[in-house]
Amino acid sequence: MARFKAILEYDGTDFLGYQIQAQGRTVQGELEKALARLNADRPVTAYAAGRTDSGVHASGQVVAFDLPAWRHGLETLERALNAHLPFDVAVRGLQVAPDDYHPRFAARGRRYEYKIYNAPVRSPLHARSSWHVWPRLDAGAMQVAAGTLVGAHDFATFGTPPDKARGRPGGSTVRTVRQATWRVADRMLVFTIEADAFLYRMVRSIVGTLRRVGAGEVSPLEFAQMLAAADRKQAAPPAPPQGLCLVEVLF
Amino acid sequence: MARFKAILEYDGTDFLGYQIQAQGRTVQGELEKALARLNADRPVTAYAAGRTDSGVHASGQVVAFDLPAWRHGLETLERALNAHLPFDVAVRGLQVAPDDYHPRFAARGRRYEYKIYNAPVRSPLHARSSWHVWPRLDAGAMQVAAGTLVGAHDFATFGTPPDKARGRPGGSTVRTVRQATWRVADRMLVFTIEADAFLYRMVRSIVGTLRRVGAGEVSPLEFAQMLAAADRKQAAPPAPPQGLCLVEVLF
Repeated sequence: MARFKAILEYDGTDFLGYQIQAQGRTVQGELEKALARLNADRPVTAYAAGRTDSGVHASGQVVAFDLPAWRHGLETLERALNAHLPFDVAVRGLQVAPDDYHPRFAARGRRYEYKIYNAPVRSPLHARSSWHVWPRLDAGAMQVAAGTLVGAHDFATFGTPPDKARGRPGGSTVRTVRQATWRVADRMLVFTIEADAFLYRMVRSIVGTLRRVGAGEVSPLEFAQMLAAADRKQAAPPAPPQGLCLVEVLF
Repeated sequence: MARFKAILEYDGTDFLGYQIQAQGRTVQGELEKALARLNADRPVTAYAAGRTDSGVHASGQVVAFDLPAWRHGLETLERALNAHLPFDVAVRGLQVAPDDYHPRFAARGRRYEYKIYNAPVRSPLHARSSWHVWPRLDAGAMQVAAGTLVGAHDFATFGTPPDKARGRPGGSTVRTVRQATWRVADRMLVFTIEADAFLYRMVRSIVGTLRRVGAGEVSPLEFAQMLAAADRKQAAPPAPPQGLCLVEVLF
């Protein structure tokens, strides 16, 4: 057997998230089904850098898995794997990795994007990949508030540790955000956030609260105070999943 | 009654095209259903600037229709109409038009975009809105060939008159192309073409043939000769519908 790593892209619309569950369609489930087809129908486990929620997309998820050593070139294996994957999942950049390689532990950062479609009327062509918000948001105020996220902070206001969200004892809520910027492209406000790691629901909780800043309901100073409070009750409800995309895992 | 005009956006994936048919889901059918709801369930006919094919999208289709004179502000009417439309269709920019206004006859031009996703592996996040093509295409050669389309030409190689496509006597196949340009954005090749009007399947036939230019199977000179031949049999098979979008109607 050999361990492989690959970049995984998926349209999250029709998935109950990345992680396999007892019931329902998951990205991991579809990936492992395709891997088993390449392994004489013996089960193969896939390991991912991040477990995205139901409805969340990825253009740069990273996964690893074991398959029998392959003698026909990695491009052939990549093509075979894609041929077994459904239309809304694909792998690219397949390569051989060390035997003990696990993308979750190897990753030293993740970058997400969140798209807000800021226009009076919803957009059918962007409905699957953005959050429709109106009235007009003040992107300048949202950028000032986002700037306060950069650095090492206790982000308890904006999320819970992944283990705690799964009913196990929670760990630290301190994370280091390296970038948090808004850019405006026509009617789309695009938020890019990079951190060493994220708490459960962290990006969507931040965006939900930054939307309130953009709407003038919360000032950038109040946003900074919410962050400093390290209190989950301070955050606005999380933004909906379809605007979120895991764009890159950094090693 | 008053005549209204509006911009119509739709995700064409789940439609059998714009024009209403005896059976199947169409954009016109959904629009007229929503309009009837605002007209005490009496039927309302919608007129469009262009009849897009099955699977083709629009971000800037223009439609007109009659409704009882409205006293509550156009924004309220627009909201009411959008509330009755399904998630994959929306109207915006609703305004009052002259009683005899018909967007098809009023339009003096149409602009379409066609997207080719040019990468070794298909992209789940772009699958609904682009044509996946590999190997790498020569965008420079495609641009040289596209340049020969600009001007007034007999485009019989690339399409049939809309009436003929519907079994009625065909009219002229001369059209005036004002712009035909490729731009490269990361792995996406985006073709923009503007003309006074288009023949049936014209954009998709042009793109299908330009793909052959990009693949080195047809030279830009041979492309110009195909155009000059004014012979439908010269064109390559049309590019698939999901890459095409009607982006603007010009008046």
